[in-house]
Amino acid sequence: MSATTSPLALPFPTLPAIAGVTAHVARAGYKAWDRCDLTLVTLAPGTAVAGVFTRNICCSAEVELGRAHITQGQARALVVNAGNANAFTGQRGRAAVAAIIAQVSAHLGCAREEVFVSSTGVIGVPLPQDKAWAGLAAALAAPPASWEDAARAISTTDTFAKGATASAMVGGKRIEISAIIKGSGMIAPDMATMLGYVFTDCAIEPAFLQSLLAAAADHSFHCITVDSDTSTSDTVLAFATGRAGNTPLAGWGSAGADAFAAALNDVCRQLAHLVVRDGEGARKFITIRVTGAVSDASARRVGLAIANSPLVKTAIAGEDANWGRVVMAVGKAGEPADRDTLSIGFGGVWVAREGQPLPDYDEAPVAAHLKGREVTIEVDLGLEDSAREDGRAAGHATVWTCDLTHGYIAINADYRS
Amino acid sequence: MSATTSPLALPFPTLPAIAGVTAHVARAGYKAWDRCDLTLVTLAPGTAVAGVFTRNICCSAEVELGRAHITQGQARALVVNAGNANAFTGQRGRAAVAAIIAQVSAHLGCAREEVFVSSTGVIGVPLPQDKAWAGLAAALAAPPASWEDAARAISTTDTFAKGATASAMVGGKRIEISAIIKGSGMIAPDMATMLGYVFTDCAIEPAFLQSLLAAAADHSFHCITVDSDTSTSDTVLAFATGRAGNTPLAGWGSAGADAFAAALNDVCRQLAHLVVRDGEGARKFITIRVTGAVSDASARRVGLAIANSPLVKTAIAGEDANWGRVVMAVGKAGEPADRDTLSIGFGGVWVAREGQPLPDYDEAPVAAHLKGREVTIEVDLGLEDSAREDGRAAGHATVWTCDLTHGYIAINADYRS
Repeated sequence: MSATTSPLALPFPTLPAIAGVTAHVARAGYKAWDRCDLTLVTLAPGTAVAGVFTRNICCSAEVELGRAHITQGQARALVVNAGNANAFTGQRGRAAVAAIIAQVSAHLGCAREEVFVSSTGVIGVPLPQDKAWAGLAAALAAPPASWEDAARAISTTDTFAKGATASAMVGGKRIEISAIIKGSGMIAPDMATMLGYVFTDCAIEPAFLQSLLAAAADHSFHCITVDSDTSTSDTVLAFATGRAGNTPLAGWGSAGADAFAAALNDVCRQLAHLVVRDGEGARKFITIRVTGAVSDASARRVGLAIANSPLVKTAIAGEDANWGRVVMAVGKAGEPADRDTLSIGFGGVWVAREGQPLPDYDEAPVAAHLKGREVTIEVDLGLEDSAREDGRAAGHATVWTCDLTHGYIAINADYRS
Repeated sequence: MSATTSPLALPFPTLPAIAGVTAHVARAGYKAWDRCDLTLVTLAPGTAVAGVFTRNICCSAEVELGRAHITQGQARALVVNAGNANAFTGQRGRAAVAAIIAQVSAHLGCAREEVFVSSTGVIGVPLPQDKAWAGLAAALAAPPASWEDAARAISTTDTFAKGATASAMVGGKRIEISAIIKGSGMIAPDMATMLGYVFTDCAIEPAFLQSLLAAAADHSFHCITVDSDTSTSDTVLAFATGRAGNTPLAGWGSAGADAFAAALNDVCRQLAHLVVRDGEGARKFITIRVTGAVSDASARRVGLAIANSPLVKTAIAGEDANWGRVVMAVGKAGEPADRDTLSIGFGGVWVAREGQPLPDYDEAPVAAHLKGREVTIEVDLGLEDSAREDGRAAGHATVWTCDLTHGYIAINADYRS
């Protein structure tokens, strides 16, 4: 964890324990630091698992194995290594992950396919097997750790520990969700050096959990960006122990499916926002709302083009209502748009409508809004859709990012590989 | 022009006069600055013209009119306004351009379609017609200006004047090319706040000039990026007066076509490099060579993904051989690649081969290379192509960019719209 906490940090919330989930942390010493950097989470037999992974082609062995293991739908353990991403490490990297999986599955008496491993940190250095072995042995012997301890142990350049929770009534039973996440740089769709873990006591079929997690990711992790860079290791896993005692959710027809999906969406959005709040060098949390697009997917791509524009991000850092840069970013997105129907606002005040600046817009509330920690950019593409009754295109999306500051340069130009 | 010259600046070269081309500069006062900001170039009757323009959807009225005028292939005048982009200014912006064209065409007695206008600067403020009118009147009355004066007059945030030249023997006649360009931010394919003008005395059919300019742009302006942002106003125009006396080039079958094309490519590459050398905050000029791709187009997209990665650009700023970030950027490019055949080098020294770091590579020359002003990144994707005799994919490309430094943030977070 970095010494300087993000000005956008939130305190770590009180996360309820999840029946069937036990976390342990230990010091593997992957880097020369005085902190726990190996996390082991054991899961009760019968725990369902789902996952979404980076789409970066050069993914790590952990991601490859995770994708393979997820297909059988059951999990008994999660191991997270912090300080070494073990990506681009060839056969030695794959062997290190296999050794961890063998050690854990032998200890728990479970199938190798029920063990999931994530690693985060520097790319290209094979994970040292001796350190992993000793760290795992210590974790297996350690007392249970708190959620906050686990959130700290999985972190790398994060400046604060990140957790989220939600609960729901599912088929007459109260279910809990507790989740932790790490990530602050190399953040972009589809995901980033972002490792997120969602734990729930809800009973749910793995296939349905997978579809709900994928849908939740589409409106959370896939709608954030810090720097447009996508990590080789990104992973979000959801584990459901089933200990809440509800009738297992098998699909949208199951009682409580909507409630659980809403709680899962809520947690994923909270987690995604926390990652943006710890964006490297971030001083402002930016919400970009795009409306009037030909489709939701098109609106999201326009939103991400704005969110990834260095010129937009530096303008917000400079507290400048530079809507011209937003126009530029809309125009380069490669999506249907029309300069002459485009409207742009900040903090709810339109500064340009239908292709022209509003010379008499009220600057005072805009200036005040831009000085705050939370900035909103509204973009209405104003396209037409003759198939709709009001004739207006209804595609919309919300994406989140942070500003681009000297802090980002300092962090990333000084970082040593 | 900015007070602090880029450390990558080159001195303005000696550009030969081009028969049939006369430049004039004047003070329109588009901003509160003490410099010439209106450039008028008059062209002899019969001058052929070709152009490539921004693909940004939200383009300026100047770009729209330029695209329309280029189809008839003849030019008599070019007007460049600096300090006001006149983009996103609706009907008032269009009227301002039409007024300039009317004024110039009336004075020269030429068709309106033979007048080309570019404007660069802040977006969203209609070009003041009174200032344009007075500036044009002054330019029409002014004595001829030097190429360097013209290069300075078209500049905005540029820190140095940029020009390039080449000559060739075409059908027994020596032809000259002189060219100027401006641009330093919002630079990305396809182009940027980049205005480039190429003048030659070569005789050439407009359609052939257009195809040669488009091809040259593909290997120059479309292979550079500063910040991935694409301007609404980007324009490169080529004017050929025909005064060299060669038999007009009509196609590749014409004697000297190859020689002229080579000279044009040379000038365009020089111009493109100059823009990168003036990239906002740039301290290092980065060349990225991609080989072993499935096609040249795929190699270029991989190269641009690397060139646009903030993490790669900050690593180079930090003089860090962080090849892991290059791996990440290759993986996110969305192009065919294989982690296990990927090789990465800096300054001609491989640091990773076929998916694994080389633990014993010679660090001293790499460190020395990264401390220099010119940094080269080599990426061999190492893909296979069974259709080729050696079995290796032959797609390759070279792209150019600059590092990402505190200077970029300072320039763009302080810039006021």
